[in-house]
Amino acid sequence: MDSINRQIDETELLEMEQRYRANFINSLTGFKSLALIGTVDSKGQKNLAIFNSIVHLGAHPPLIGMVTRPDSVDRHTLQNILETGYYTINHVQEEMIEKAHQTSARYPKTVSEFDAVGLDFEVINDFPAPFVQASTIKIGVQFKEKVPFAINGTIFVIGEIKQITLPQMVVQVDGFVDLVKAGTITNSGLDSYHVVLDAKRLPYAKP
Amino acid sequence: MDSINRQIDETELLEMEQRYRANFINSLTGFKSLALIGTVDSKGQKNLAIFNSIVHLGAHPPLIGMVTRPDSVDRHTLQNILETGYYTINHVQEEMIEKAHQTSARYPKTVSEFDAVGLDFEVINDFPAPFVQASTIKIGVQFKEKVPFAINGTIFVIGEIKQITLPQMVVQVDGFVDLVKAGTITNSGLDSYHVVLDAKRLPYAKP
Repeated sequence: MDSINRQIDETELLEMEQRYRANFINSLTGFKSLALIGTVDSKGQKNLAIFNSIVHLGAHPPLIGMVTRPDSVDRHTLQNILETGYYTINHVQEEMIEKAHQTSARYPKTVSEFDAVGLDFEVINDFPAPFVQASTIKIGVQFKEKVPFAINGTIFVIGEIKQITLPQMVVQVDGFVDLVKAGTITNSGLDSYHVVLDAKRLPYAKP
Repeated sequence: MDSINRQIDETELLEMEQRYRANFINSLTGFKSLALIGTVDSKGQKNLAIFNSIVHLGAHPPLIGMVTRPDSVDRHTLQNILETGYYTINHVQEEMIEKAHQTSARYPKTVSEFDAVGLDFEVINDFPAPFVQASTIKIGVQFKEKVPFAINGTIFVIGEIKQITLPQMVVQVDGFVDLVKAGTITNSGLDSYHVVLDAKRLPYAKP
């Protein structure tokens, strides 16, 4: 890219104004795995929260991880996961961006974000956590383990995928799921949502 | 989406053919944070490997995490990080897709993937790990902690961002980095690379 490069060293990084640094550092990881996490507490109170830290951990067993923060709106999600042992991961499409983003507001625990933002929930196969009806790809997950990171108090939540609902047409013959066709979007920074258009699949690399 | 939904339960999931399941499960996390990780061992042998599990952990201190597998090509990267304590995270643009993907081939440790795939390395400010010259956004990271996940043998590597090089024009006034303008691409599944085009930033959500 023909452009003047900017070099940021440790001193400048640590002296950045707090909100500026949050925007900046949150952008550096690149595009992120975006999803709505659906949970319910032991009394039946539903919760829905947007996460952008979903990570593939393994295919056999099918494990998925995500980072939560104890001091934020993620807290209700984590509480519910620990109470019931289950949660759902629901992909976000373009037409849901505003509603998905709105789940990040600090609603009290007595409010269901499904109601507050206007996204209907859906029960599938008696799975013990609510799915987002409007999501194209819906994943039911059983909680396996939480790993606290002492370095900054964040918590890594590991779960095993138990069931998936998705359109037949987005699954290719080799198992690859066409997320562009599914309409799944991605996220960058704290508040930017992106539609993904092009795709290029490459063959298994050999030396 | 008007389409016939497919329901996959635990039994079908566990009975999937191995490669099919790898493609399928790797797709479910949504679009991923893609980057080339540059390292060097104590003898000066360079290594470059593609990762799609980069996660933001916190802005203060600026922490970044990634998942590695001890049984794959990630291994040289992890060895080098533990030997030297440093690594670089380099964003991938469209014109580098083939070369970036090729770093996933199982080269012997005596081969530098920088040479093998044809990506020049760059030393910036005497940082003790090599950057990818062609990358628009280059991040220098100091290793802080490795957290093994007993459940499947994967390892979470946590590092602190020490320096960043990026074009001045991609940084907005509030610190947000425009990754679309930077040309950063994203990944899905095991082998699909995607250009990201649209962006919509939303204001901080309030109840």
